[in-house]
Amino acid sequence: MSEKLMISRMGASVPDTIWVQGRDLCTELLGKIGFAEMTWLELTGELPSKAQTTLLEAMLLTLVEHGATPMAIATRLTYMGAPEALQGAVAAGLLGMGTTFAGTAEGAARMLYAGLKDAPADADISALAKAIVDRELDAKRPIFGIGHNLHKPIDPRTPVLFAIAEQQGYRGRYVALIEAVAAAAEARTGKSMPVNATGALGALCCELGLDWRLCRGLAVIGRSVGLVGHIAEELRNPIAKQIWMRTEEEIARSIAIADAKQEQDA
Amino acid sequence: MSEKLMISRMGASVPDTIWVQGRDLCTELLGKIGFAEMTWLELTGELPSKAQTTLLEAMLLTLVEHGATPMAIATRLTYMGAPEALQGAVAAGLLGMGTTFAGTAEGAARMLYAGLKDAPADADISALAKAIVDRELDAKRPIFGIGHNLHKPIDPRTPVLFAIAEQQGYRGRYVALIEAVAAAAEARTGKSMPVNATGALGALCCELGLDWRLCRGLAVIGRSVGLVGHIAEELRNPIAKQIWMRTEEEIARSIAIADAKQEQDA
Amino acid sequence: MSEKLMISRMGASVPDTIWVQGRDLCTELLGKIGFAEMTWLELTGELPSKAQTTLLEAMLLTLVEHGATPMAIATRLTYMGAPEALQGAVAAGLLGMGTTFAGTAEGAARMLYAGLKDAPADADISALAKAIVDRELDAKRPIFGIGHNLHKPIDPRTPVLFAIAEQQGYRGRYVALIEAVAAAAEARTGKSMPVNATGALGALCCELGLDWRLCRGLAVIGRSVGLVGHIAEELRNPIAKQIWMRTEEEIARSIAIADAKQEQDA
Amino acid sequence: MSEKLMISRMGASVPDTIWVQGRDLCTELLGKIGFAEMTWLELTGELPSKAQTTLLEAMLLTLVEHGATPMAIATRLTYMGAPEALQGAVAAGLLGMGTTFAGTAEGAARMLYAGLKDAPADADISALAKAIVDRELDAKRPIFGIGHNLHKPIDPRTPVLFAIAEQQGYRGRYVALIEAVAAAAEARTGKSMPVNATGALGALCCELGLDWRLCRGLAVIGRSVGLVGHIAEELRNPIAKQIWMRTEEEIARSIAIADAKQEQDA
Repeated sequence: MSEKLMISRMGASVPDTIWVQGRDLCTELLGKIGFAEMTWLELTGELPSKAQTTLLEAMLLTLVEHGATPMAIATRLTYMGAPEALQGAVAAGLLGMGTTFAGTAEGAARMLYAGLKDAPADADISALAKAIVDRELDAKRPIFGIGHNLHKPIDPRTPVLFAIAEQQGYRGRYVALIEAVAAAAEARTGKSMPVNATGALGALCCELGLDWRLCRGLAVIGRSVGLVGHIAEELRNPIAKQIWMRTEEEIARSIAIADAKQEQDA
Repeated sequence: MSEKLMISRMGASVPDTIWVQGRDLCTELLGKIGFAEMTWLELTGELPSKAQTTLLEAMLLTLVEHGATPMAIATRLTYMGAPEALQGAVAAGLLGMGTTFAGTAEGAARMLYAGLKDAPADADISALAKAIVDRELDAKRPIFGIGHNLHKPIDPRTPVLFAIAEQQGYRGRYVALIEAVAAAAEARTGKSMPVNATGALGALCCELGLDWRLCRGLAVIGRSVGLVGHIAEELRNPIAKQIWMRTEEEIARSIAIADAKQEQDA
Repeated sequence: MSEKLMISRMGASVPDTIWVQGRDLCTELLGKIGFAEMTWLELTGELPSKAQTTLLEAMLLTLVEHGATPMAIATRLTYMGAPEALQGAVAAGLLGMGTTFAGTAEGAARMLYAGLKDAPADADISALAKAIVDRELDAKRPIFGIGHNLHKPIDPRTPVLFAIAEQQGYRGRYVALIEAVAAAAEARTGKSMPVNATGALGALCCELGLDWRLCRGLAVIGRSVGLVGHIAEELRNPIAKQIWMRTEEEIARSIAIADAKQEQDA
Repeated sequence: MSEKLMISRMGASVPDTIWVQGRDLCTELLGKIGFAEMTWLELTGELPSKAQTTLLEAMLLTLVEHGATPMAIATRLTYMGAPEALQGAVAAGLLGMGTTFAGTAEGAARMLYAGLKDAPADADISALAKAIVDRELDAKRPIFGIGHNLHKPIDPRTPVLFAIAEQQGYRGRYVALIEAVAAAAEARTGKSMPVNATGALGALCCELGLDWRLCRGLAVIGRSVGLVGHIAEELRNPIAKQIWMRTEEEIARSIAIADAKQEQDA
């Protein structure tokens, strides 16, 4: 048998209580802390300050609901096919929270951590930002957390999130760096490239000291609420079958048009 | 094209804001409500009262963390195999939140709703409970939400959850019914069969007026927090490979013992 | 430590080979058996006869592809969101293979096994079938495996599957029973209710002696091929974003119509 | 409404048949082609030659079963938690087929395609291989498809797969390149670094002309068979609960040892 110890201190059940992160669920947590505090406790092993809770709540709220996203559609279609297993429908939706949608906050946090890793306290943030922008654009890579297709000229969530961070004493160097990155990108490209919500979330993950790989975890937690919400609406007013039928109809229509065109061209 | 309207009012994005349940995310929700309130808003389309929030938070907290559950193990093993996709690791764990673990709260809520559906305000709860118990036990079916293998003589979460419900004005007929069901089951079987946490959660779903099919959704939401927590710990101190290796070793050891025994018997 | 042995004989890796079901992958299986034979070997621990292979292949083929199903749509949308994790996109699609789509073959197999469990060799199949139909319709339950919304008057797959079964010597009592169930249902309802493909698959699972709970497993195996196929087409010609955009547009259009109508009515 | 056509030609159902890739399922496919041929048809839209089928079958077989892998354990634990949804248990296992386990074949195929993309027919394969090895090792990156922890000195699957490819006329430049990469890596490091099974699979994907992103799809297809196989064995002889219990016991034991040691040290 392997000799290495296999240690996890997340929690344990004993006959007269449940231990969670070294705390008694029944006497120390239930009725004493809120859901966002519990989230912080799970992520870090420590209870959060009021400021950390407030900021984390705003971040989680931002991630819950965006209407008929690909994730919400996948959840509804899956629930129609497997109503016996709500957990599978939520899982199907969460599986779309990958690099396209959740990866940018993660990428922004990683970039910001790396950018300030060895920087002295009095580092020139603008110069650091310019170096990042030049490196990424020279390599023809997109800069995470900057610009948005729909939300123009600014992403309305960013100033609100940063204002909450400021009130709570968490508007620090990472926020400054992403703002400087946005400014440097605008200066170089001549285009409007404000910090978007995923950039703001990535910067705030850094301010809170969370591992950049957990940015995607926050997205998953927030979106799980939204996807259960979509199932709740689907129970009241189902639309999954219509989404399916219209997709089939549209494909049939498109094929007919394409085939007619091809015949005509021939 | 189908003519039936395809309506969903969960949310929508426009250039200058994001609408969630008919509310402006940036001006009405961020920094104004907490994560549990957002959960209620998503489930029902309405903002909760303070009492509803407090009760929902206690319910969600109960579902977050139970240590090295099958779900947590599945999440850790999956994260080891696919670290590029945290969302898949959480999804793998959520997929185990089925009838065995989450189905009992759901079953209890369904039973309680059905039990009081046509009951007058002054119905004899004890008689209703006895009828339920007799029907289920006569059919040799288990009664959802009663008894526990580990938590004896009582499940310590139940009195805490019911006390919070009482403080918030939500200890009503559904709680009374599940307590009467437990008493009737004990009277008939002569065994200790107290209301367990899933029974308590099922009853409180009913008190809050939530669809019984959403009980499993609350479990999924709560557990998504716990599973991201397990990934956070796995990042700090990985144990997935050891779980795998020990399982392989134990299977090899078991086969060797079984084969040696068979040879000996031959 | 638990003392119970933990035995699995599916396979094991050693330095110079891989054992699969007690056979040497490299010298006994690779290049010696086909993919369907491997499937049978995994399900049963034994290599199949030629007849079993032929029948299983026809069954699996039936399950692979049905165009733009809810499962295929979920897979494509998920792949768009998380292209880093093809496995997650396939998983999202498979999660829709539940009671609505795959549950009927399973239900048919369960019904047929139960129907012939204690029946003597010379049992009156028609009488057994009539009893099943009366029991289900009296209880207002649907009969699994009978009737089809689209494929009328018959499901074209059924006669082909049964003909292959007959050629291979596997058209036995379970096929006879489901055909008798269909006849009895038509006699009682006066409507055309032929055996559909899921009914045929359920009956053939029984003829092959497979556990009825594995019917859904065959559906999952077959559909995994189809869903990877949809990703292959999505790589050549992506449509996921259009499915998403059109769904959003249609919801916005529907809300506008509904709101205008409501205003008009007010 | 968007004007872009939304075309998918995978399949469609009409009352009297099912079309799959432009072929009539009932008259052209059922009983006419095998499961591996159907897989090829789904991936490419064309029926395979006998040689392509034989090679694809060997590749798929290699991916089906490796005993109590993390994927198989996740599937079994999930099935215990949610026996109502076999599809979820298979999905949970498939979610672990990520970069750690399936990513190497993909990475190898990508590397081989890139390596020969602009190479003339008479390119010096050894020189190309040396350049690849130098580039990867200079950047301290691992080389995909080379070396194995367990299978030493060679991976026994590799010569069998390459022999089948040779018999079928598919041992071409990509196989030559990966063999040359292995030789160059051995020459530079002085260590034994033979082509492993994932390297062989990656090379054969290239020989067959499949998109490198579909390598992972083949792994998912093959493994779905293996995971349903594990559920079949779990139905006959369940071990999931023991895996869970032993993991919990081992964690409790490890914590006790660690805490005792810490106390002793204090």
